Amino acid sequence: MDPMPTQFDPPSGTRDFLAAEFEARERAFATIRSVFSLYGFEPLQTPAFERLDVLLGKYGDDGDKLIFKILRRGEHEASGEADLALRYDMTVPLARVAAAYGSQLPVPYKRFAIGPVWRADRPGKGRYREFTQCDLDILGSASPLADAEIICAVHDVLSELGVGGFSIQLNSRQVLTGLLSVFGVPAELGAGVLITLDKLDKLPADEVIAELAARGLAPGAAAELVAVVAAPDAGSQVASALKGSDQGTAGLDEVRRILDLAAPLLPPERVGFSPRLVRGLSYYTGPIWEVTAAAVPGSLAGGGRYDHLIEQLGGPDVPAAGGSLGIERILLMLPGSGTERRARLDVAVPVLSEDLAARSFALAAAARAVPLRAGVYLGSSGKLGRQLKWAGDQRARWALICGPAEARAGTVTVRDMVSGEQTAVPAGDIGRHLAQAAASLAPADAGEAAVRDGTDTAAGRA
Amino acid sequence: MDPMPTQFDPPSGTRDFLAAEFEARERAFATIRSVFSLYGFEPLQTPAFERLDVLLGKYGDDGDKLIFKILRRGEHEASGEADLALRYDMTVPLARVAAAYGSQLPVPYKRFAIGPVWRADRPGKGRYREFTQCDLDILGSASPLADAEIICAVHDVLSELGVGGFSIQLNSRQVLTGLLSVFGVPAELGAGVLITLDKLDKLPADEVIAELAARGLAPGAAAELVAVVAAPDAGSQVASALKGSDQGTAGLDEVRRILDLAAPLLPPERVGFSPRLVRGLSYYTGPIWEVTAAAVPGSLAGGGRYDHLIEQLGGPDVPAAGGSLGIERILLMLPGSGTERRARLDVAVPVLSEDLAARSFALAAAARAVPLRAGVYLGSSGKLGRQLKWAGDQRARWALICGPAEARAGTVTVRDMVSGEQTAVPAGDIGRHLAQAAASLAPADAGEAAVRDGTDTAAGRA
Repeated sequence: MDPMPTQFDPPSGTRDFLAAEFEARERAFATIRSVFSLYGFEPLQTPAFERLDVLLGKYGDDGDKLIFKILRRGEHEASGEADLALRYDMTVPLARVAAAYGSQLPVPYKRFAIGPVWRADRPGKGRYREFTQCDLDILGSASPLADAEIICAVHDVLSELGVGGFSIQLNSRQVLTGLLSVFGVPAELGAGVLITLDKLDKLPADEVIAELAARGLAPGAAAELVAVVAAPDAGSQVASALKGSDQGTAGLDEVRRILDLAAPLLPPERVGFSPRLVRGLSYYTGPIWEVTAAAVPGSLAGGGRYDHLIEQLGGPDVPAAGGSLGIERILLMLPGSGTERRARLDVAVPVLSEDLAARSFALAAAARAVPLRAGVYLGSSGKLGRQLKWAGDQRARWALICGPAEARAGTVTVRDMVSGEQTAVPAGDIGRHLAQAAASLAPADAGEAAVRDGTDTAAGRA
Repeated sequence: MDPMPTQFDPPSGTRDFLAAEFEARERAFATIRSVFSLYGFEPLQTPAFERLDVLLGKYGDDGDKLIFKILRRGEHEASGEADLALRYDMTVPLARVAAAYGSQLPVPYKRFAIGPVWRADRPGKGRYREFTQCDLDILGSASPLADAEIICAVHDVLSELGVGGFSIQLNSRQVLTGLLSVFGVPAELGAGVLITLDKLDKLPADEVIAELAARGLAPGAAAELVAVVAAPDAGSQVASALKGSDQGTAGLDEVRRILDLAAPLLPPERVGFSPRLVRGLSYYTGPIWEVTAAAVPGSLAGGGRYDHLIEQLGGPDVPAAGGSLGIERILLMLPGSGTERRARLDVAVPVLSEDLAARSFALAAAARAVPLRAGVYLGSSGKLGRQLKWAGDQRARWALICGPAEARAGTVTVRDMVSGEQTAVPAGDIGRHLAQAAASLAPADAGEAAVRDGTDTAAGRA
């Protein structure tokens, strides 16, 4: 059980990220940015809030209720009215940006966005009111190459992050529409039938058939539909079933085209056609896809083509495809995400008396120039033992001791905090000495790069 | 004049950051994180909003009016009441975190925070309602070494960012209090006198003296006070004036100690004692400092010791020192911050027919493996000329052309988009060829690192 919240906890459904967790998240975000950038996707950052009228009405009644609204200010505060609202997703801001900067944006506009969104959902395990979304979208291309590029980028991100055992299921709304048509499903039942079909992963086939029949489908048609989409050779069964539907055949051709493009670049088990994939959101118009991993319920990522959504959201009428990584869920899967004991410093420098402080200060600066993370003792004890305990608490790899004896001799005692070994080093050589010591611990050339990204260091990994 | 706002602009006082500007900002933030990390400061990220009662009453009446309040939700929305509010600064959340995680935090707790804060100020040139704050603080150390470490870290950040011609002025609240005491300023006039003294940078000395007299200071004392703090040899004048004040002398000793620690590490012109430095905020209790640059009005950074503030803000009673970088202002000073034409891709890959698309797709993947930023043409034209224009619009350095002739020959035509030169390369060698071409453009080893941080590449810089 979680401890009772106190007055010092962050607001319900939000989190404080202390160093280890922050750094694990930042590492993942940096990987994502790097992969998306290799695909030519550009970053976009929009404000945390939008005008309320930009958001309201875009997410349905249920969504609207989850929008955090910001009270008007000054004399208008007393009205109790809101004029702004925290962003609920990255897509409505994208539509606004597409409308605002049309001519400045490349065509197609390939953008990614990683940042917090806010929803006043009931907080629960893994469900937050402030959480990070990670979207990539291509506006202005109707080509299935765009869909394939998005799928490959998502694959590469998951692979680079070290997510194991995932696979990408691909389908098309056109295939689903075609199936509904050849199985004689009345248009008004279509949406409900798809919702039921989507349950094939969770329910036995006969329950799904019963639910389809309860929705008004002829029992024979329901059984046949389920048999086709759930068949082990669903691909060829769907293909022959769709012979009677131009739309379905076109959708299937598009799926095959995307697989022809993406499959050679990905391990064969990673991607395939899945005619039972539905994806809940009604705005999809073409190819749809979802990433799942055996070990994890639900999906790790998903997306598809949504050719009219940007216009419905207030933007220009452009064809569009995109996807979203369930980054909060993915972060939970990554090894060592924030729980490992992390080194705060590589080099800890005791300060043994006031008149030796400047020497300690200069030693820390020399260590930083390596570059290694270094800090001087900032407490009030003058005792070396106490200060070495502090160095241990920082999980520093080395302590640089400069007491009166060392000051007279012009040396520094370098203490290896792991082995306890101590070496006297001329004060002027300390930078070179530490650089060599760090290099001998770390894989070649990892030292500087690791320090540069501010998250990990040679000594920290050792 | 700015264009009139449209319905697609971001809310008043906020900004959208498109790719070039986003990347310039991210580069600066990465530099800051890296330097702070070398000093052993840890990142901290708190939620965008806090409970309203955590924020209210912490910023004075004027500050309270600038807080963005979030309306209660669901059945409580109609009440028009707020229960949450967007964070106004990084310090109140720090106090809350210090209270919440006390035992989990290292002692001292050295943390930095870079992120947006929100203030409902009237927007103006360089004044935003959503802007980035960049703070570093040390909680739990009363040592002047902490102040010196903060000053050195701020110096290193500005220097690494490439900010030119800046200098750090150092003073102490204790010095100021001592001066007020030796010049016989009544306690109730102290705050006002300091506000006036702070104007010595902007007003002629006689106007400052007149204003001090108007505040009730004896005209002789006012002239003498100004003469001391504005003297070219203010350091020694202040020292002799403070002989009558234990507090002032202690403050001056602390200033000297910080200079003794920091000055050897910094260029000599970068830091000095400035007895006329006041800094407006009343919470400072010891050393204070400010960074200015000749070319820029106002300060680039500032901070000081504030030993009781964390407790006043709801945290534990710990000594503390910290500083804040005026990062929005600093970003404006940096060369090429977002205005340069940036390359969107290094490698652009035309798609000359549907059946050649998979080859183009694989070529782009080979370029990414270099790693270079690469994308295929996603438009509808089949014409090479049109697609090469797209490659130019992307400012790609190379286009990889694979038409029917190349497909038959098993080659790729690599077009240098700058020289127009075209080379036939065996398809299997394309990765190696591009890696060599990129290496010949870039300074040694810059290629991969540049791509890795997702902001710039060998080809983009060439």
